[in-house]
Amino acid sequence: MSKSSIFSTIPKLNYEENAPDINTKEFIKTIQSRRSVRSFTDEPIPEDVMMSCLELALLAPTSSNLQCWEFYWVKDSSKKEKLKKYCLSQPAASTAQELVVCVARTDTWKKNNEQILSDFENSDREVPRAVLSYYRKIVPLAYNQGFLGLFGIFKRIVIFFRGVKKVTPREPTSFSDMRVWAHKTTALACQNLMLSLRAYGYDSCPMEGMDSKRIKKLLHLPKGAQVCMVISAGKRASNGVYGKRLRLNSKRFIKVI
Amino acid sequence: MSKSSIFSTIPKLNYEENAPDINTKEFIKTIQSRRSVRSFTDEPIPEDVMMSCLELALLAPTSSNLQCWEFYWVKDSSKKEKLKKYCLSQPAASTAQELVVCVARTDTWKKNNEQILSDFENSDREVPRAVLSYYRKIVPLAYNQGFLGLFGIFKRIVIFFRGVKKVTPREPTSFSDMRVWAHKTTALACQNLMLSLRAYGYDSCPMEGMDSKRIKKLLHLPKGAQVCMVISAGKRASNGVYGKRLRLNSKRFIKVI
Repeated sequence: MSKSSIFSTIPKLNYEENAPDINTKEFIKTIQSRRSVRSFTDEPIPEDVMMSCLELALLAPTSSNLQCWEFYWVKDSSKKEKLKKYCLSQPAASTAQELVVCVARTDTWKKNNEQILSDFENSDREVPRAVLSYYRKIVPLAYNQGFLGLFGIFKRIVIFFRGVKKVTPREPTSFSDMRVWAHKTTALACQNLMLSLRAYGYDSCPMEGMDSKRIKKLLHLPKGAQVCMVISAGKRASNGVYGKRLRLNSKRFIKVI
Repeated sequence: MSKSSIFSTIPKLNYEENAPDINTKEFIKTIQSRRSVRSFTDEPIPEDVMMSCLELALLAPTSSNLQCWEFYWVKDSSKKEKLKKYCLSQPAASTAQELVVCVARTDTWKKNNEQILSDFENSDREVPRAVLSYYRKIVPLAYNQGFLGLFGIFKRIVIFFRGVKKVTPREPTSFSDMRVWAHKTTALACQNLMLSLRAYGYDSCPMEGMDSKRIKKLLHLPKGAQVCMVISAGKRASNGVYGKRLRLNSKRFIKVI
């Protein structure tokens, strides 16, 4: 659970990836012009644009690279109508051209971890031993909560005593922590998705006001899958933004200490 | 808890905000070149760049606009050294020029809601009655979980029965839901922060492997505040990226149905 050597030293690798220059103003314009749009026109979003935005979503960072997210692009018209209803038929959903259900998976880390290890073994990429050891040993220890969460409770006790004297990573040690963990990573990707739509000339609205139980049933989602948010998308209608952006004074939220 | 008129009709407003065109390629380059960088050079990040990135973070969408986030930019050198230790002294932290603790607040929604209402009352902006009613009636009902979460349990029962026949929003009805809610919104802003740093020519690493208990103590955070992630930032060192981006096949995560 504690310091693995991947945390303590930079591995010696024959790899370099240079950071390209970005047109900063263009990027700022993307962030600034992204508003929650609640009314869309009839103009469709080309399939390849939607797919590109979804692929860009997957480039967000993901906790331990376990990719605990799923994006259900609901195209089937009967399912789409149902989904609109389950989003309370709010205009952001009912006028949308496309709807994506963004799902946080608390239960796929094991499967994905095994796939990562198998990819490592079958590739010719240079994988530091510390990285292999992280996926082989630390991941199963860190994310497993055990039957009824009992292993989580055990970990909490061990962490509590270890933590009295030593710096110790604390989470996840409960199902609630696992939910937080999965939703957090999924939300990072959701933001990529919304900004990507904006960058392609389209807009979006993230919705949490929805019947998650009915949506789960519609998508046949298992118990460990949770709806993080539904993102609607389309071309902004003239009445799509309900007013100037309202944010409280940023001094409330940015603390320089 | 259910349909408020803001969910059912588009308010008639004298407001229009046009969406500017974005250089899509430039944006894609930003997302694609953002990697988790674990080794930074000695080059400092100018103060105004950091502040601009933090301000851009706050332009992410936030659930019910309740802005349940906080960003602690730790500049004080003694606190910064401690924070690096609490991030397990991993190179991504120890070589970083700047560190930001991104905090999810489950407890500020009431205060922020009151401020939003007061801002509405004192401004000359046109606020639809349905919006006012949302902040006056729906928000207190939706986010309050009551003493020991008892009101949450009551809501769950009501929602269960109402939900048998009617489409019904389900969450949040527990402290666990409130955690998910706050972390989700905070993560959206975290992604803005990391992409903004990239767009300004800098890089970042989101860290969850850290001693959240010690960090909370260091920042004097109350019980309702939780560390979402620590984001380190700086100029990418030549050995800063540990290898090609590893993502499992996107078909695992993008489901077209």
